[in-house]
Amino acid sequence: MAALPLIRPVILAGGSGVRLWPLSRPWRPKPFVRLAGPQTLLQQTVERFSASARFAPPLLVCNRAHRFLVAEQLQQMGVVPRAIVLEPVLRNTAPAAAIAALLLAEDDPDSLMLLAPSDHLIQDLPGLHEAIDLAAAAARQGRIVTFGAHPLRPETGYGYIKQDGELADCPGCYRIGRFVEKPDLATAERYLSSGAYMWNSGLFLLSAARLIEEMGRHEPAVLDACRRALAGARDDEDFLRLDEDAFAAQPSIPFDKAVMERTAEGAVVAIDIGWSDVGSWEALHQVAAKDADGNRLDGPVIALDSKNSYLRSDSVPLAVLGLEGIVVVASDDAILVCPLDRSQDLRALVDRLAADPSYAALVEEAPDGGGN
Amino acid sequence: MAALPLIRPVILAGGSGVRLWPLSRPWRPKPFVRLAGPQTLLQQTVERFSASARFAPPLLVCNRAHRFLVAEQLQQMGVVPRAIVLEPVLRNTAPAAAIAALLLAEDDPDSLMLLAPSDHLIQDLPGLHEAIDLAAAAARQGRIVTFGAHPLRPETGYGYIKQDGELADCPGCYRIGRFVEKPDLATAERYLSSGAYMWNSGLFLLSAARLIEEMGRHEPAVLDACRRALAGARDDEDFLRLDEDAFAAQPSIPFDKAVMERTAEGAVVAIDIGWSDVGSWEALHQVAAKDADGNRLDGPVIALDSKNSYLRSDSVPLAVLGLEGIVVVASDDAILVCPLDRSQDLRALVDRLAADPSYAALVEEAPDGGGN
Repeated sequence: MAALPLIRPVILAGGSGVRLWPLSRPWRPKPFVRLAGPQTLLQQTVERFSASARFAPPLLVCNRAHRFLVAEQLQQMGVVPRAIVLEPVLRNTAPAAAIAALLLAEDDPDSLMLLAPSDHLIQDLPGLHEAIDLAAAAARQGRIVTFGAHPLRPETGYGYIKQDGELADCPGCYRIGRFVEKPDLATAERYLSSGAYMWNSGLFLLSAARLIEEMGRHEPAVLDACRRALAGARDDEDFLRLDEDAFAAQPSIPFDKAVMERTAEGAVVAIDIGWSDVGSWEALHQVAAKDADGNRLDGPVIALDSKNSYLRSDSVPLAVLGLEGIVVVASDDAILVCPLDRSQDLRALVDRLAADPSYAALVEEAPDGGGN
Repeated sequence: MAALPLIRPVILAGGSGVRLWPLSRPWRPKPFVRLAGPQTLLQQTVERFSASARFAPPLLVCNRAHRFLVAEQLQQMGVVPRAIVLEPVLRNTAPAAAIAALLLAEDDPDSLMLLAPSDHLIQDLPGLHEAIDLAAAAARQGRIVTFGAHPLRPETGYGYIKQDGELADCPGCYRIGRFVEKPDLATAERYLSSGAYMWNSGLFLLSAARLIEEMGRHEPAVLDACRRALAGARDDEDFLRLDEDAFAAQPSIPFDKAVMERTAEGAVVAIDIGWSDVGSWEALHQVAAKDADGNRLDGPVIALDSKNSYLRSDSVPLAVLGLEGIVVVASDDAILVCPLDRSQDLRALVDRLAADPSYAALVEEAPDGGGN
């Protein structure tokens, strides 16, 4: 039996975000943070899609401000990517996906692309690979396959996917009933108890040709701008630099909205693989390995009479007593303390820091962060 | 009218203690900590007893390991002390008081000594001076006057003084009914509601001759050892170094037990002057000036939706969200987080640190801390 074509990981290392402040910063977004162990989330993502013979070398798409972070972290792993594509401005994931599809279609229009965020955690690697194999069968038939995680709580910050009937020709793949973005709590609770809804994990598998066709149909301005941004791109040994004027002349739109919510070819594969988008300290605490008291300790930390807390120091020793449900994170230039169940409100604290000249540097982009 | 003889402050800067860890350490005990503003507790104590014409230059008694801290902090204030007496070993406050009495009696046996701890806070300076004037009248008649603070809570860590009838010849001075060291909670609550008990502030006013006489009667071994420690002392420009063998050959005993609980000459003056022994972060929080939310913020601290907390950084910026009743203290080499109402249990945490080779240096005496 001939080997099946390789799956080509397209790793989206864009975005900014301070939801894991003080570890994540505008100049060091979540993909470049080490949450546990020696690898950053980006490196864990690259590792995840290199660890088997299924995968071709990854294609990276990132903000040009982060090009050295991306290149250095790949080089540390000894990974030579298909390319590191630099986005001159932020335009969300639909343009990034279109750029990747156009590039990979040059190699082979039937290339299967695996669109993957670079700042999520996945704990069960064999489970992930199994789900990808299931999805690949559907993607080779022209489906656009997303991966739905079984919800663990009535999360209001996620997108939900309603699962419909199984595809006759692809066992384990299901039709998509509907997408719902960030429901209110009552709705999320209903979804959770119904068993018919899944969290949208942000992973997608489809062929390059299919993506180009769907994007041309639903968002022709995006496809056109991406073609021109690639035509005007400058390629050097390290980076593929997209043409700024062309790339900027398109809407900022996520791939979900541009294609997934409109296509007739959508499908979903259920995953139960310890997925988390690590969107807050609380979300990280939920998936992290913890001690018998429910504490996660990272770095030089001593905890006495404490439970259900996330305690981390990347700096001087941290000693705590009598805490419950608290996150303490000490980086080398700032310290955060708050209840875990308030960690979704971190944005308000970051805004306060940004508004204060004494602290703004802790949460702002470096002035020369853009670069080219 | 001839000026009354000056009162001679005897400031006891001995002791160790980690009750305000990570600010206080064995090598930097509480007297040498800055709790608020530019002055240490020792400097605030010296200032308190220099700020009026009542007082002669202070006599300092300290552990020889802390001699440079004491001398430097006095020099920074431009204060030239009567002497800085170095204790070669820890023997609690009775020997320190006896040494001071013997020295001051050389100047004048009728000297009035004000024995004062160097690690307490007092907020109402005129109120303190007024109370000292009241007490001085009784001390000149041979009384040993202590100062009793109105209790604010059923504190189980303090000593209590029961106040009896007013002295006929000294209005405002009262006879002492009894002393009670660290009562249990039920007893402390009874004392609080009775109105007849006061906290023992650790301040004492008496003549040098009276102290020598009482010590000779109740603890002759102490007086004898102190005489010999002084006879064998070496005096240089900066320090009076007691003879180690002589000083070590006596019991370790507090002045309260050695004299106050036994004398027939005891008296008490009530003070309501914002006194605190700052024996825990909670005690400090109670007396500290706070914002409208009950928070005390020191250093680069941003607090959002937080109340009744003590938040301090002597290091990098500290940002907190949603805290209530929490102490966070970041020093340059360690961070503490615990509920304020657990801060009396800090000793257990410090013991844990001491037992761990990775952290012991944060809570131990430096190996060469003794010196001579």
